[in-house]
Amino acid sequence: MSRVVGPRSGDAIFASVERVNAELFTLTYGAIVRQLLTDLEEVDEVNKQLDQMGYNIGIRLIDEFLAKSNVTRCVDFRETAEVIAKVGFKMFLGVTASVTNWDADGTCCSIVLEDNPLVDFVELPDTCQGLYYCNILSGVIRGALEMVSPL
Amino acid sequence: MSRVVGPRSGDAIFASVERVNAELFTLTYGAIVRQLLTDLEEVDEVNKQLDQMGYNIGIRLIDEFLAKSNVTRCVDFRETAEVIAKVGFKMFLGVTASVTNWDADGTCCSIVLEDNPLVDFVELPDTCQGLYYCNILSGVIRGALEMVSPL
Repeated sequence: MSRVVGPRSGDAIFASVERVNAELFTLTYGAIVRQLLTDLEEVDEVNKQLDQMGYNIGIRLIDEFLAKSNVTRCVDFRETAEVIAKVGFKMFLGVTASVTNWDADGTCCSIVLEDNPLVDFVELPDTCQGLYYCNILSGVIRGALEMVSPL
Repeated sequence: MSRVVGPRSGDAIFASVERVNAELFTLTYGAIVRQLLTDLEEVDEVNKQLDQMGYNIGIRLIDEFLAKSNVTRCVDFRETAEVIAKVGFKMFLGVTASVTNWDADGTCCSIVLEDNPLVDFVELPDTCQGLYYCNILSGVIRGALEMVSPL
């Protein structure tokens, strides 16, 4: 297959896609977490459920990512992490993330968000200790990667 | 109070606020509804819960609306409905709605969305009959209006 176009930057993609107000998204996400805390009671269960919801989103969102980004297969996990941080987060949340804390094997790293719209205005009560408030994001990444991992 | 600026159009506001990818929002909303259907089982309970979540969002979102829109107090319910349809929906979801089906008393109307980002790609199984999939929206409006209604 000849490549007629190169990968597009997260900025360019983000500017071209349909968007909704970030505050509405933030408040909607807050309403989900609150609902799960009420229904499930256990913080551990909420963490698990947020991850599962993210997974269900990720396995769908990867289609939009591939369709809009023109990104081709990453050569290794390091490149994958960079693409998630620089293209993925920019394209969907409009923010930039950086990859850091690599272990010696190159199998483990942190993706750090400089600005995270999910946590705007969020204040957690003491009863929420142990809650991974943004756990949906790791679920999204897990689901998306699973769809493009080699068999 | 002297008005130094007039009301801003929904388009102008929507262009100026922070936004996130609409597909991410759509899929996140779908994940909520799916989660509620699993946890609550009864469609009626899900409708009620979506309304309640919307209410919790609306009582917060009204602040953003008032801060960004420069809209002043509406003179009657007809004007209120028009502002929700033309400014509110545009500002938060980036879509236009129209107000129709007024009853003789002017106390009841329909707000019809020409394009609804919440339902993109949504297919409901037969088991979801009676589900008001977008019920969160009426909850948002209810919560927002309650915060600005005369005492």
